[in-house]
Amino acid sequence: MLRYFRSRHREEWILGRAERDRRQGVTFSDDGWTLVIAGDDSDREGWVGTILALSNGSIGVRGAIEERARASTFLAEAYEQSPIHYHERLHGFAERSDTRVPVAEPLGLRVLVDGVPVDFGAAEAVQTIRALDLRTGLLRRESCWRLADGRHLTIHAERIVPIDGTPVLLRRLRAELDGADVALDSFLGPAPRAIGQSDDPRIGVHLGSGGFQTEQADAGLIVERLPGSGIGVAAAQRSHQDDEWLVVATGFAAGAAASDALRAEAESRAERALRTGFDAALQGQHEAFAAFWDRAGVSIEGESETSAALRVNLFHLFTSAGRDGHSSAAAKGLTGEGYEGHYFWDTEAFMLPVLALIAPDVARAMLVYRFRTLDAARANARELDHASGALYAWRTIAGRECSAHYPSGSAQYHINAAIGFAIGFYAEASGDDDFLFAMGAEMLIETARLWLALGDWHADSFHIHGVTGPDEYTALVDDNWYTNRMAQKHLRLARRVADRMADAVPEQWASLSRKLVLGDGELERFSRAADALHLPYDVARDIDAQDASFLSKPRWDLAAAPKDRFPLLLHYHPMTLYRHQVCKQADLVLGMVLGGEEVSPERKRRVFDYYEPLTTHDSTLSASSFAILASEVGEHEAALRFFRDTTFVDLEDQHGNTDHGVHMASLAGSWLALVWGFGGFRPSGEGFGFRPQVPPGWTGYRFGMCWRGSELRVRVDREGACYEVVAGPALTFAHNGETVHIEAGRSWAMALAQ
Amino acid sequence: MLRYFRSRHREEWILGRAERDRRQGVTFSDDGWTLVIAGDDSDREGWVGTILALSNGSIGVRGAIEERARASTFLAEAYEQSPIHYHERLHGFAERSDTRVPVAEPLGLRVLVDGVPVDFGAAEAVQTIRALDLRTGLLRRESCWRLADGRHLTIHAERIVPIDGTPVLLRRLRAELDGADVALDSFLGPAPRAIGQSDDPRIGVHLGSGGFQTEQADAGLIVERLPGSGIGVAAAQRSHQDDEWLVVATGFAAGAAASDALRAEAESRAERALRTGFDAALQGQHEAFAAFWDRAGVSIEGESETSAALRVNLFHLFTSAGRDGHSSAAAKGLTGEGYEGHYFWDTEAFMLPVLALIAPDVARAMLVYRFRTLDAARANARELDHASGALYAWRTIAGRECSAHYPSGSAQYHINAAIGFAIGFYAEASGDDDFLFAMGAEMLIETARLWLALGDWHADSFHIHGVTGPDEYTALVDDNWYTNRMAQKHLRLARRVADRMADAVPEQWASLSRKLVLGDGELERFSRAADALHLPYDVARDIDAQDASFLSKPRWDLAAAPKDRFPLLLHYHPMTLYRHQVCKQADLVLGMVLGGEEVSPERKRRVFDYYEPLTTHDSTLSASSFAILASEVGEHEAALRFFRDTTFVDLEDQHGNTDHGVHMASLAGSWLALVWGFGGFRPSGEGFGFRPQVPPGWTGYRFGMCWRGSELRVRVDREGACYEVVAGPALTFAHNGETVHIEAGRSWAMALAQ
Repeated sequence: MLRYFRSRHREEWILGRAERDRRQGVTFSDDGWTLVIAGDDSDREGWVGTILALSNGSIGVRGAIEERARASTFLAEAYEQSPIHYHERLHGFAERSDTRVPVAEPLGLRVLVDGVPVDFGAAEAVQTIRALDLRTGLLRRESCWRLADGRHLTIHAERIVPIDGTPVLLRRLRAELDGADVALDSFLGPAPRAIGQSDDPRIGVHLGSGGFQTEQADAGLIVERLPGSGIGVAAAQRSHQDDEWLVVATGFAAGAAASDALRAEAESRAERALRTGFDAALQGQHEAFAAFWDRAGVSIEGESETSAALRVNLFHLFTSAGRDGHSSAAAKGLTGEGYEGHYFWDTEAFMLPVLALIAPDVARAMLVYRFRTLDAARANARELDHASGALYAWRTIAGRECSAHYPSGSAQYHINAAIGFAIGFYAEASGDDDFLFAMGAEMLIETARLWLALGDWHADSFHIHGVTGPDEYTALVDDNWYTNRMAQKHLRLARRVADRMADAVPEQWASLSRKLVLGDGELERFSRAADALHLPYDVARDIDAQDASFLSKPRWDLAAAPKDRFPLLLHYHPMTLYRHQVCKQADLVLGMVLGGEEVSPERKRRVFDYYEPLTTHDSTLSASSFAILASEVGEHEAALRFFRDTTFVDLEDQHGNTDHGVHMASLAGSWLALVWGFGGFRPSGEGFGFRPQVPPGWTGYRFGMCWRGSELRVRVDREGACYEVVAGPALTFAHNGETVHIEAGRSWAMALAQ
Repeated sequence: MLRYFRSRHREEWILGRAERDRRQGVTFSDDGWTLVIAGDDSDREGWVGTILALSNGSIGVRGAIEERARASTFLAEAYEQSPIHYHERLHGFAERSDTRVPVAEPLGLRVLVDGVPVDFGAAEAVQTIRALDLRTGLLRRESCWRLADGRHLTIHAERIVPIDGTPVLLRRLRAELDGADVALDSFLGPAPRAIGQSDDPRIGVHLGSGGFQTEQADAGLIVERLPGSGIGVAAAQRSHQDDEWLVVATGFAAGAAASDALRAEAESRAERALRTGFDAALQGQHEAFAAFWDRAGVSIEGESETSAALRVNLFHLFTSAGRDGHSSAAAKGLTGEGYEGHYFWDTEAFMLPVLALIAPDVARAMLVYRFRTLDAARANARELDHASGALYAWRTIAGRECSAHYPSGSAQYHINAAIGFAIGFYAEASGDDDFLFAMGAEMLIETARLWLALGDWHADSFHIHGVTGPDEYTALVDDNWYTNRMAQKHLRLARRVADRMADAVPEQWASLSRKLVLGDGELERFSRAADALHLPYDVARDIDAQDASFLSKPRWDLAAAPKDRFPLLLHYHPMTLYRHQVCKQADLVLGMVLGGEEVSPERKRRVFDYYEPLTTHDSTLSASSFAILASEVGEHEAALRFFRDTTFVDLEDQHGNTDHGVHMASLAGSWLALVWGFGGFRPSGEGFGFRPQVPPGWTGYRFGMCWRGSELRVRVDREGACYEVVAGPALTFAHNGETVHIEAGRSWAMALAQ
């Protein structure tokens, strides 16, 4: 059924990285739209499960095979809440954590040969091939088993998770075995135990409760509840035989509601899905995805695998983000248990800028989630002793702070700036003033207020003490450049939006001002603090400083560091990291990407040259920012290397932990590295522009985006850039600083900069 | 039996502090040697239990009354070991903690009236008076109960813990009830549960194990073992009737040995104590304490209560410190469960400088304990990524790091300097070269090496990044003045001792050099780094800086802070504290006390004036250092206030947590505030000197000390200072900078400085 081939080009490249052998048996179909993975070795099954996960923002189902499935399924709204235990608890420490845990297992399968269940433990797996069709989110599988009696059993399975956001898994299964009567029986299993704590802080926690407790269990039904959070999860499974296929629908429902209500909802979802049928559902998927792929379609000429990898990345980004405003996009989406299923700043700093341009509805829903948790952010600010404003939790599901190590957790106040940036960027790109005035402005002002509550004046400059920037190898510092610069932009944006709102919707503004008890001159103070924000600069070295003390520390000689000591965080005490010039990830470099518009190219180059050798890229967030700045300063080889790192982070399991879930920000980063990096895209106040380049070895590339309802398609090659507005109002933007105005249905070609 | 009176003078002073009502019913006998406490209200019984605790360094028994005793007894060598749970565990975090827990309860008492046990729950406590005789460590008690039938029962109880260091409690008890046959029955109870975790980080932990497990239990015998540490504790109780008294001896043994061995040891101790008898044991106490009090005798003319309070403080300090080199003096001694029974830096920075002068054998034993754990300190240095040297654990019992919050724990590298200082001070004061060459030098060199491994060169100056100084309201800073200055002195001391050893005992030195693989020029590097150590100074403000960034932060306005928000650590997130100029305790001020010999008086005054208003004194370590510097800079009123604070810290329960155990460093600090403060005592390289003053309102004061075998007695009044060498070799020292030479049996009177 599935064609299995190897790409020589890709393979050669992979072979150069001997330790990254995940790609053996992985390839793409000729058209680049189907990801094919052969084999089911247990040592890489965790990785495959992540890569082939299906999601729709409310449910995620890992790509496990039915015969061996365990802990395959997550729901956006199903998480336990446990007390955080501290041996030494200090005031204000987060008291409880939310932990997203696997729910009832929908993939249970019994295969009866001549009425006798097959023992897959005793059977030999001959071959398994799985194929994920990115155009529909259809995951197909063909597994061949040699049974104990020597006969061969083949199982065919297909599954989809409807992209409309319903927590439903729809599958069809059939089995072949010559000369025998084969029957399939699908069953639900109770929720498995979550992953326990290990030495790796990125995975596993100690759940205070024992996990799910069963409230109802019946044929095709399980209702369980998490005692800590009180969240119940109902799973209902329905199936029928359709010709040769056993069609199985599993519906879920999660929430605080009573068992019977959850059960009814789950059953109704399962039944509705079954009624719809597999073929009709698949057709729906095709249509729903077509619009997305039409807009987001990226390709690099002559680089079919890289193009396909970009699509895999966008597939996960698009499908894992919440659609209903009750959830967002977690660091791992809904593809695994890493980081407890938490949302961090990278949702807004990395994922949202992509989705705002290629799936603005999803971007909006993610911001609505933040609005829904604004009260929790206000409470969090009080918890951290700030009398006013809102501070979003560093890591959370429900909104409250779940960080148990504040130096690299709650101290990262820059999350507020990321959310502010995302609100501004989404509002600009979408023109969605309804959102901006109804929700965005309130968030912007409350989060901007926090900078005033946090910072302090020192003579004529405004300083922010004792915070941690994006680089977690440096903690609790004064005047982190990135934070201060982003706070500066955040304060100005809040002021600008307030002014615009007062002008455009004066009554709504008056009402909001009253609600927020906005003081006389408070917005003026935003501007004053913004103008006075201190951005540390080392005059002697002629270089921007990551923070007030960074450059005074000894440099970590990464070139001389033993290879087996990476990532450093698993081999050194954080204090050792903190007292050196060493970066886990882009910090100042990201500041130059998101806030470098007033910085000269020469100064950016010095930043790149100075900080690049100090950065381990132990965080997968790092490569995309470096790729973008490298492009900007003309370090094309480096840009290409970083682009590849961020693009193949999970397909190659570069960090060895893709089994915990995809690195969603890095996947988003691959699009950023292409569009912001090579394409030179930048927002600019109320518009945007490009400065496209073609990296060495490439012929050209394409991408699309949506700006205020207009659909723009961009094609770049050595001849130049071609911009086409395929739908919507005319667009005005900049190409290499020159204004371009294009009507719908027209295209415009321009030469690249020399 | 006991006379109960109130001191008007004291009471008036106390009444001025309405919240400190512990002193009601507390007084001293006329001669100032007996502390008397009346009453047994349950709300202050925890405090009384601490104040009246008896100890000898190996056992501590709180002053609880038999009828209500619970968790009264601790052994230096009995502690549990539990895994430290971190919700987010990072590399190098301490993995396990030692927790000293109460052992089998020796105070169980049944009183049988006409053969029926008295139910003390139903009886009414009419009065209890307890009296602690500081000259012998005898705790006497008289309790009167009204029984359910209206009759009055009086219980007399006396107890001592032999100061020779044997883990034995010897008691005698009798009861009176007119017209009835009263019988007493003493019994052992199993070890109670340790205090559980609360919101106060200073008390209670979550023990991984369930606590002691019983191995043997018999009449008068309990052998229990802690599953985590494997430490077993045997308790054996023997009693006999001696005239009207029931004499009860409880012997303990603790360690890794098998049950039977521990049992035999405990039984033999109990039996030996019983054979000795109470009167003989008490006589032994009298003799043993006489020498100590003769030397340590402190008194302030006309201030009988303050004099007595100083004696209570020295009593606890002297009795709680380990005598066998297997234990030291914990933050709470053996008087309570606070801080898990851990040893910290204050053992060497506060307690040892006192004991080195008034109980040098005990000081030596405490340093031998550090020598025994030097390998653990080496391992700890490796754990924190230092390739060479030794770093003593911030908090520990067995030697390994037990700190679960590194910013205010393991980051306090200055503990190495405190231990170095103590080694140097003890060696100077005692002339104990045997210790210095056999143990001290190795510790000095290994701990000094760490500064080189930790710090780094920046141009021509040597810096120490990312550590925390004594002030725990400021964490993970660069170039903490105190740390750097103490490291400087530490490096120079190590070099000096090495040079002297090479000269005095060349073979022993050669052997030590080989053992330590001392590199060519390594000692020279000690000196170079010491000479280049950076001591931050703010030229604009003309003030020494607590660290590189302290003075750039906003000042916390303590004068305007609500009174109910102290101690700040219980009301603010540590990040809030870290980002302000606010101090929990003396930091730079302590640096000026221990390392201010090259600092001008004017500069010290500026330090006092600047840092005093920024200090909350939320740590009980603070007052004594402030008292000393206040004296030195002529702030006599302030000095007296701080002296009183440190002297009455536990008698007045100033911090509301004396029930967790005494504040041993503060108790030691009262002697330091008197002798280093008003007496102006300072060590100086190889000698010492005084600059005595009489604070306003005082007539005069006395204290004694021992220096290299000579017994010096000092009397200061408004006429001048009188120094007398009562025994030992002649002494040479300085008085107000002038050299004084006194032969044994002679005294010398000198005028005070004007």
